[in-house]
Amino acid sequence: MRFGPLIDQVMEAFQCLPGIGPRSAQRMTLHLLERDRAGGAHLAQALARALERVGRCERCRNLSETPLCPICASARRDATTLCVVETPADVLAIEQAGGYAGRYFVLLGRLSPIDGIGPEELGLEQLIRRVRDEGIREVILATNPTVEGEATAYFITERLREPGVTVTRIAHGVPLGGELEYVDGGTLLHALQGRKPL
Amino acid sequence: MRFGPLIDQVMEAFQCLPGIGPRSAQRMTLHLLERDRAGGAHLAQALARALERVGRCERCRNLSETPLCPICASARRDATTLCVVETPADVLAIEQAGGYAGRYFVLLGRLSPIDGIGPEELGLEQLIRRVRDEGIREVILATNPTVEGEATAYFITERLREPGVTVTRIAHGVPLGGELEYVDGGTLLHALQGRKPL
Repeated sequence: MRFGPLIDQVMEAFQCLPGIGPRSAQRMTLHLLERDRAGGAHLAQALARALERVGRCERCRNLSETPLCPICASARRDATTLCVVETPADVLAIEQAGGYAGRYFVLLGRLSPIDGIGPEELGLEQLIRRVRDEGIREVILATNPTVEGEATAYFITERLREPGVTVTRIAHGVPLGGELEYVDGGTLLHALQGRKPL
Repeated sequence: MRFGPLIDQVMEAFQCLPGIGPRSAQRMTLHLLERDRAGGAHLAQALARALERVGRCERCRNLSETPLCPICASARRDATTLCVVETPADVLAIEQAGGYAGRYFVLLGRLSPIDGIGPEELGLEQLIRRVRDEGIREVILATNPTVEGEATAYFITERLREPGVTVTRIAHGVPLGGELEYVDGGTLLHALQGRKPL
């Protein structure tokens, strides 16, 4: 037995969310219908509106509600430094950490030939054009320290060998607050190799 | 920095869901916008439609898309047995277990004077009227084995002392597949007190 097709559809639709299985979807659906109809209506409306109006920044490819995202549009950001990240969530993480004043380029993925994701899908031509045309002096590669992220960083480095442009990679090492004992071997090796004089 | 007001609103709206905090809400929002716009649109639409059309069954108070829910409308359910539960999720759980052929009454809560939930909020008058008018012979109290659930069951028992009506309580004991070692003391005492001859 089920309550009916409309409720079933909501339970099923919730399962498109990451980490949400049938049981959580059922709990969410019943919660909204029983206890928080106003919240549910707000969610449905906000989601529909965002899906309709949110596109991509035409300069950095980040999610944006305007043709240029606030960061690209801001005159206060350093236009000579570009940080290359895989996803919009990475932009958020770096912004929340504070301290970075340059601009971004969002790949919206990483090189992954198996999934059919090549240089075009990541907008690498656009990236190279930007570096050439906008007088960018440093490109910081902040792709994830995974096999694909590293391959992507390496590929971009090869393509960006231009006079006057420095390409850097974010440092990998022991995270702050982490205990050496619990850090994996690969990270420890990176931390040792990347050691600096005090 | 945030992406913009529309995306912010979605991230905030997702937090009305049970168990969803700011981080999960952000992950859900970005997932839908980056990777599953069709799924997001379907969710928004299904949710809006369900909120608009799902009401309560006028006989059992369960969530229903029609004036009478499928169970109350079915001629194949035993009309002389009524199972009283706290929430629509409880109805689902019992139906999924299979084997119960009677009808339901959904309290949509439990007695909780602190939260201002008394007999009227739980529709107890309606329940008593049904028992009297519909020739119900057994009322099974399946409220949760919590302090409030027990108090609710006790209160209903007191109100349903009618000739010809048996009021029963679901059994409490060791769950199937559970190991005695890990079962709490209260449950074990219930299991011992409720022992049956073999």
